[in-house]
Amino acid sequence: MKGLYFDGAKASYREDLPMPVRDSGRSLIKILMANVCSTDKEILKGYRPDFKGIMGHEFVGIVEESDDLSLIGKRVVGEINEVCHECLYCRTGRSHHCLNRTTPGLSKDGCFAEYMVLKTENLHVIPDELPTEVAVFTEPLAAAFEILEQVEVKEGMPVGILGDGRLALCIANVMAMAKAKVTVIGKHPEKLELFKKIASVTIESEPEQYEIVVEATGSPSGIDKAISLVRKMGTIVLKSTYADNASINLSMIPVNEITVVGSRCGPFEPAIKALSDGSIVLPPVEKYDLKDYEKAFESKAFKAGFEFK
Amino acid sequence: MKGLYFDGAKASYREDLPMPVRDSGRSLIKILMANVCSTDKEILKGYRPDFKGIMGHEFVGIVEESDDLSLIGKRVVGEINEVCHECLYCRTGRSHHCLNRTTPGLSKDGCFAEYMVLKTENLHVIPDELPTEVAVFTEPLAAAFEILEQVEVKEGMPVGILGDGRLALCIANVMAMAKAKVTVIGKHPEKLELFKKIASVTIESEPEQYEIVVEATGSPSGIDKAISLVRKMGTIVLKSTYADNASINLSMIPVNEITVVGSRCGPFEPAIKALSDGSIVLPPVEKYDLKDYEKAFESKAFKAGFEFK
Repeated sequence: MKGLYFDGAKASYREDLPMPVRDSGRSLIKILMANVCSTDKEILKGYRPDFKGIMGHEFVGIVEESDDLSLIGKRVVGEINEVCHECLYCRTGRSHHCLNRTTPGLSKDGCFAEYMVLKTENLHVIPDELPTEVAVFTEPLAAAFEILEQVEVKEGMPVGILGDGRLALCIANVMAMAKAKVTVIGKHPEKLELFKKIASVTIESEPEQYEIVVEATGSPSGIDKAISLVRKMGTIVLKSTYADNASINLSMIPVNEITVVGSRCGPFEPAIKALSDGSIVLPPVEKYDLKDYEKAFESKAFKAGFEFK
Repeated sequence: MKGLYFDGAKASYREDLPMPVRDSGRSLIKILMANVCSTDKEILKGYRPDFKGIMGHEFVGIVEESDDLSLIGKRVVGEINEVCHECLYCRTGRSHHCLNRTTPGLSKDGCFAEYMVLKTENLHVIPDELPTEVAVFTEPLAAAFEILEQVEVKEGMPVGILGDGRLALCIANVMAMAKAKVTVIGKHPEKLELFKKIASVTIESEPEQYEIVVEATGSPSGIDKAISLVRKMGTIVLKSTYADNASINLSMIPVNEITVVGSRCGPFEPAIKALSDGSIVLPPVEKYDLKDYEKAFESKAFKAGFEFK
């Protein structure tokens, strides 16, 4: 089959990849669409030196084989962590931090291919009326919904979002749904245009303006800015991950009793529901053929993805 | 009167200081005992360049004059922040972060003197059976109780405390009272001896052992250690403040969804109650005459204080 294979150093488009074989508990999925995430780009830069395999983890597909016959022919999205249900974290309600987890495109074959296999328990059937190119946003939008699981967002609460990229847009949507008073603090006026339907936008903000500041810049300097923008006893949500160290003065965290909440993957169900309602503002995916993966990875579009026909 | 005066650069013992005059809403307090806090030492190093006045903020005293006649002759301790009740933070239940607050020994005359004045609403009468030299620990112990206001500590929960100083001992006491399974990770075997009645002690610990790690080392490198010791989705409580920047890789905070809670001053009532119960393990205060303030500041004792007769 066709797929994008990472050999530990570089990616290559191949047409000779073996069809994946599902075992009991897993389903075989024919991929309809798969989106490029910044994590995929990080892998090309050496983020996961031990990984060899098919890249990609954001997808919509159709179940072709499964122990659960009710799933056959259904369109699905999939949670990315396959977990053991036995380790400390699985036993204490933290299974997405499973010590033995495997993740498509990060530690096992992923979705930039015609077919993939994934644990059946990870699959979520999507409604017929939800277009594939919208449903493919489920995983990144779920990561934004994770914030609502971690932090109480009240109606009218001033919330600042640092960053004007994909992640920031997903977060702004979720915060607007929670009826917060959202301000997006970005650097690129042309990107900020996208946010105007759901939030106030600005290039600069006065200090101590927000009860919650979400750091989604992808830059290590974002935390310093967040510390200056958040109110005393307020909350900073850290979404960005970065390879580099940052030189930070942490004193203001105890002095102002700031809480910093690290936030990663999130729940699929509210994301699917919000996408189905049409209540999320997202620009269209820029579609590429898998052969043109280099262009897709270099795309400056809001979101680039691969369509399989 | 006698007092220890800071002139913006250095401290000096003086016997010619004017008696403080109380205004309406404040009480005049005769100081019985006042303890040296590390913040006082920081002031001598230049932490508050704008401050001029009598030093000190941890005290036990007797009310001599007050609008509240029921307080006259009573032994009291006092919360350190005099607040405005009108600013954003006062109006939203965060008055100890009052934008207009003044603090004895930091921005107004403090307690290293025969008398001080403090807002009457800040005073707490202490029980007759509570010795003065124990009651003087109310303020630092209250800062430890603040953690229980911020973080849910469950019975049997593994809690690690980084540090083996005064603050760490107060925190270990509070965590032991909350029935956590407490381990203190320190550097000084002789100091760790003190903790053995209430906690396990160690010099080194394996990673990911604790649901809560309290950082109380006073060193900027403590946060890195805390990040390695805490479990995924666990909580780090930051108690130390430091003047220096630290070079930190924050990636593990979002990746492991760690929460970092900054923690400062705390509630007096549970601290007074715990000290009265005799349930807190604390070594005796090393007592000095105010004239010998230099020795008190240099003392390596668990706690040094001034006794007024």
